[in-house]
Amino acid sequence: MKINKNWLVGFVDGEGCFYIGINKSNDLKIGYQVLPEFRIVQHKIDVQLLYSIKDFFGHGRVVYNKNKGDNIMEYRVRKLDTLLNIIVPFFEKNQLQSKKKLDFLIFRDVVLMMKEGKHLTSYGLQEIINKKKQMNKRDKDKEIVRS
Amino acid sequence: MKINKNWLVGFVDGEGCFYIGINKSNDLKIGYQVLPEFRIVQHKIDVQLLYSIKDFFGHGRVVYNKNKGDNIMEYRVRKLDTLLNIIVPFFEKNQLQSKKKLDFLIFRDVVLMMKEGKHLTSYGLQEIINKKKQMNKRDKDKEIVRS
Repeated sequence: MKINKNWLVGFVDGEGCFYIGINKSNDLKIGYQVLPEFRIVQHKIDVQLLYSIKDFFGHGRVVYNKNKGDNIMEYRVRKLDTLLNIIVPFFEKNQLQSKKKLDFLIFRDVVLMMKEGKHLTSYGLQEIINKKKQMNKRDKDKEIVRS
Repeated sequence: MKINKNWLVGFVDGEGCFYIGINKSNDLKIGYQVLPEFRIVQHKIDVQLLYSIKDFFGHGRVVYNKNKGDNIMEYRVRKLDTLLNIIVPFFEKNQLQSKKKLDFLIFRDVVLMMKEGKHLTSYGLQEIINKKKQMNKRDKDKEIVRS
């Protein structure tokens, strides 16, 4: 299946997620690891769609999301290089129409900070933690939508 | 905001729902009322998007979905005329890319049956009940996606 850019933006407005994970890490001097991730979660019935999106971007992985049950898969991009050079430029050029755009803009700020190594300083890490708090605020309400 | 058709198809692949309600009704001889509905449910933060979609189709309503909490709104079309003449032709021309297309095709069958009054016969009603069972099968699994 050939992916249309506008279709993809609409699909990501619905189903995409720009996420910043912050995990404890004994390996890093600062004590925390910052893990940005772009993902699209789908029922496995539509796994072919996820593979088409992977082909479109030429990067990322399609995997089971074990936390979410046997039927749930996701396309995800975690590599900082791919986020910086492929994912972020795509959504700069092809703008999201929903308020998810605000999440994207914060996500972009964070990956740009990481490019400069700011996540390895305590000032930068605190700034990232503060930015993360502003993201995906509606997701909790949205649980209800599905029930 | 101006709606792009491909964007809208992508957004509906993610967030749209083609639904057939079947309710008991003392007013109808057959005893049941068939209520087809096309809807897009969103957090109220994106209500402007729902109004833009309403403007795009020139029909339908944007309302609170009280079952789903104070923050949840939906764009919905219930009028058979609008479903037959606006919604169904749009998705015939602009094809869904996900397996939601299968739900749409069943939905289309049902509204075409209703156009011919078949939902008012016991044979037709039973056929619609059987078709409904084939729809939105993945939605239960999808609850998990959001948590």
